[in-house]
Amino acid sequence: MDLIFGKDVKLREDRVLKRLEGIVSRDNLFTDAEHLVSYSYDALNRETLPAAVAFPRSALEVSEILQVASEEGFPVIPRGAGSGRAGGSIPVPEGLVLSLERLTTIHNIDGDNLLAETDPGVVTGVLHQRVQAEKLFYPPDPASQSFCTIGGNVSTNAGGLRTVKYGVTRDYILALEAVLPDGRILHAGRKTRKSVVGYDLVRLLVGSEGTLAVVTRITVKLIPLPEGRKTLLAYFPDVSRAGNAVRTVLRKGFLPATMEFLDGGSLRVLRDAGKITLPEKAGALILIEDDGYPEALERAMPRMKEILGEAGAFEVLIAEDQKAADNLWGARRALSPTLAKLYPQRISEDVAVPLDRIADLLRATEEICRGRGVGNANFGHAGDGNIHLNLLFDAQNHQQVESAEAAVGEILRAVVGMGGTISGEHGIGLAKRPYLSLEVLEPALGLMKRIKQAFDPKGILNPGKILP
Amino acid sequence: MDLIFGKDVKLREDRVLKRLEGIVSRDNLFTDAEHLVSYSYDALNRETLPAAVAFPRSALEVSEILQVASEEGFPVIPRGAGSGRAGGSIPVPEGLVLSLERLTTIHNIDGDNLLAETDPGVVTGVLHQRVQAEKLFYPPDPASQSFCTIGGNVSTNAGGLRTVKYGVTRDYILALEAVLPDGRILHAGRKTRKSVVGYDLVRLLVGSEGTLAVVTRITVKLIPLPEGRKTLLAYFPDVSRAGNAVRTVLRKGFLPATMEFLDGGSLRVLRDAGKITLPEKAGALILIEDDGYPEALERAMPRMKEILGEAGAFEVLIAEDQKAADNLWGARRALSPTLAKLYPQRISEDVAVPLDRIADLLRATEEICRGRGVGNANFGHAGDGNIHLNLLFDAQNHQQVESAEAAVGEILRAVVGMGGTISGEHGIGLAKRPYLSLEVLEPALGLMKRIKQAFDPKGILNPGKILP
Repeated sequence: MDLIFGKDVKLREDRVLKRLEGIVSRDNLFTDAEHLVSYSYDALNRETLPAAVAFPRSALEVSEILQVASEEGFPVIPRGAGSGRAGGSIPVPEGLVLSLERLTTIHNIDGDNLLAETDPGVVTGVLHQRVQAEKLFYPPDPASQSFCTIGGNVSTNAGGLRTVKYGVTRDYILALEAVLPDGRILHAGRKTRKSVVGYDLVRLLVGSEGTLAVVTRITVKLIPLPEGRKTLLAYFPDVSRAGNAVRTVLRKGFLPATMEFLDGGSLRVLRDAGKITLPEKAGALILIEDDGYPEALERAMPRMKEILGEAGAFEVLIAEDQKAADNLWGARRALSPTLAKLYPQRISEDVAVPLDRIADLLRATEEICRGRGVGNANFGHAGDGNIHLNLLFDAQNHQQVESAEAAVGEILRAVVGMGGTISGEHGIGLAKRPYLSLEVLEPALGLMKRIKQAFDPKGILNPGKILP
Repeated sequence: MDLIFGKDVKLREDRVLKRLEGIVSRDNLFTDAEHLVSYSYDALNRETLPAAVAFPRSALEVSEILQVASEEGFPVIPRGAGSGRAGGSIPVPEGLVLSLERLTTIHNIDGDNLLAETDPGVVTGVLHQRVQAEKLFYPPDPASQSFCTIGGNVSTNAGGLRTVKYGVTRDYILALEAVLPDGRILHAGRKTRKSVVGYDLVRLLVGSEGTLAVVTRITVKLIPLPEGRKTLLAYFPDVSRAGNAVRTVLRKGFLPATMEFLDGGSLRVLRDAGKITLPEKAGALILIEDDGYPEALERAMPRMKEILGEAGAFEVLIAEDQKAADNLWGARRALSPTLAKLYPQRISEDVAVPLDRIADLLRATEEICRGRGVGNANFGHAGDGNIHLNLLFDAQNHQQVESAEAAVGEILRAVVGMGGTISGEHGIGLAKRPYLSLEVLEPALGLMKRIKQAFDPKGILNPGKILP
């Protein structure tokens, strides 16, 4: 393939490449077509070829690379697994992709102090398994956990299914080592669960999508692994009753680990794909999983079943063992792959609204989509109001594509009007940058720009992301 | 009494006072001796008379006051209940104390969305009671909860007893309304449990001790009120075994709401005061409280008792009812008042260390104090490593005072050496400003200064706090 580069791309100069090679060695710096193409996109459907890709193997190498970038004035795009849905790691043409994939060491799992220290390139699911082997628990569980990295999770403040009970990535980061755009190494936070010593630089970096610093070491808080786990599934005739049921469970004093839901559109997609048998009259599905002392679960599950029944569920199943639980998770697990297969170009949003507006959100989405001739299938984390709206359309049909894109803007405006947020867990990246100002008004926006300026006065880190 | 003011104090000019009176009215602006003295100190043993005290009754009034301050160039010291232990609300001589005591409305307790919206001047304990009446729970519980305010808690990222299970104030703040030093009103955060939309301005304000903005409205996250609660007390011969026992309980999979401890020095103070009967050979005391489903507690408590016994407790008592629980809490509750009465000028630190360094911390404290002829009595939150070290000395003895102050520096250095933090929950304020750079190094310190500059370019908000 032909690579097209701008004229003034520093990174195409031998002198600059030599400097970078001197840092990471020849084996870890690439400008060939295959690498540039492979690193030109992430999980958002867009692509831009970078000028080079580097794979540092230590914080020191990251520091030296950023020093060169700062001196020479080329942009650097930090990247984990490239699984981000908002395009946060899509390069710019004159930029260096800084892949953290080779920083994959878990340095320490410390059961005595309930923490772990890890490199950013460690896959989240690997961290899960490793701490679980020590009877410890790192709760944040983005759906992409089997391939996303913990560094990417920090960058996007990743959420997941267990937020209702356990919170998000932000709540589990004790300390960070990060490299500033000028190459200086920053240490923020402490290994203690409490510390009030100056401004919270840790939380400022969490969710900053690689625009302020490159995270090179992460100290996460762990908790004891809950002993038991139990799953329940409930079918409802419609989403409105399902939404009420979720709130009722919470109001009755239960705080399950996950409360997932699928709407009628999602169930239709699964039925049409013919993979899952679902009751004919099911218009919504709620999946509840809780963990804790087995005695507590033995008591809570039947009580929740009762509450869900009273709230309008026509069928409630409690899994008696892990195999049955896996079965109950079948529809939820099959949905994303099925959607991806049938609608590879679908637009997938990750808005969140207050719990009592979930039904309104789905109604508004349905209306907006119907008005524009676009389909929709929605699912998500009913316990925390974070709903994945999927706009379904024919990607070959130019008008449908335009309609879907227009629908997104309309939906995001409606979400903000409901007191919701335009991104619950994916971040702004490139995808939602045009919509940021729907939610972030002055003076907040000006402060964010000044913070970016304070960290990255030359603007070399992940340019064009988040801020307009 | 005679009030002594500097020459160039803007706030003594009639013109400026008139402007402020025009905002808050005569009834809410004071320059008389009684008010100035009353607002010259907080819970740190220091005082400085301010030039005036204002009591705004709305965010708009706060905004107008800050606009005047910004235009005229006088410092503003935001203040909640003045219960801070680090001197974060001690005025400067030319400053206006901005007391938020009259902003005391809880605007909304929203069980459907598990949140509450409150003014900053609401007493934390009042918020606790009000949400509890709705079967909801706001977990952060600083020891001063019966008089401290939620606004002060936000400013200091207050901790408390329940951090081990529930986290700190930071983890419960969904959104903030705050007034910037130039009077502009900032809205940060959303009412949803997930939101990744730009930099985390909420967490930047939490713990910033009134140096970045004045918080005027707080949206807190609530959870369902746990149904049951149970208390257990264990006596150990020494702190080292007590510390190990705490870690063992956690390692065995239990995560109780609170794990408090008293060391031998504390037990001695209580014995000497003659108020509490304690076993002769007790050299440390651990108090565990957990909440949740009653069935879970019925099972967990005896199991923890067993573990504590195996770890060296010579007596473990489980409270069968609330009265018995109150009894078990007796020693813990009596300690602070007894210390305050016997040693009104004691120095009280709130360091935190990794859990496996608690015994080391106590050993180091004992050695440092003994070497300087100062006593110590220590207690705190063993489950999160946040220990209140109390240096006991004769306040009339100048040399003892000096020795104690020197001991503080030595202890804080040891704490940082252990990977700990110089303040777990009180903050830096005035008291620990000289020690900030023990823990916050460059480039973190420089970034904090630039953040302060971004929010408060004229430096009028709470000058002289946190940063050197």
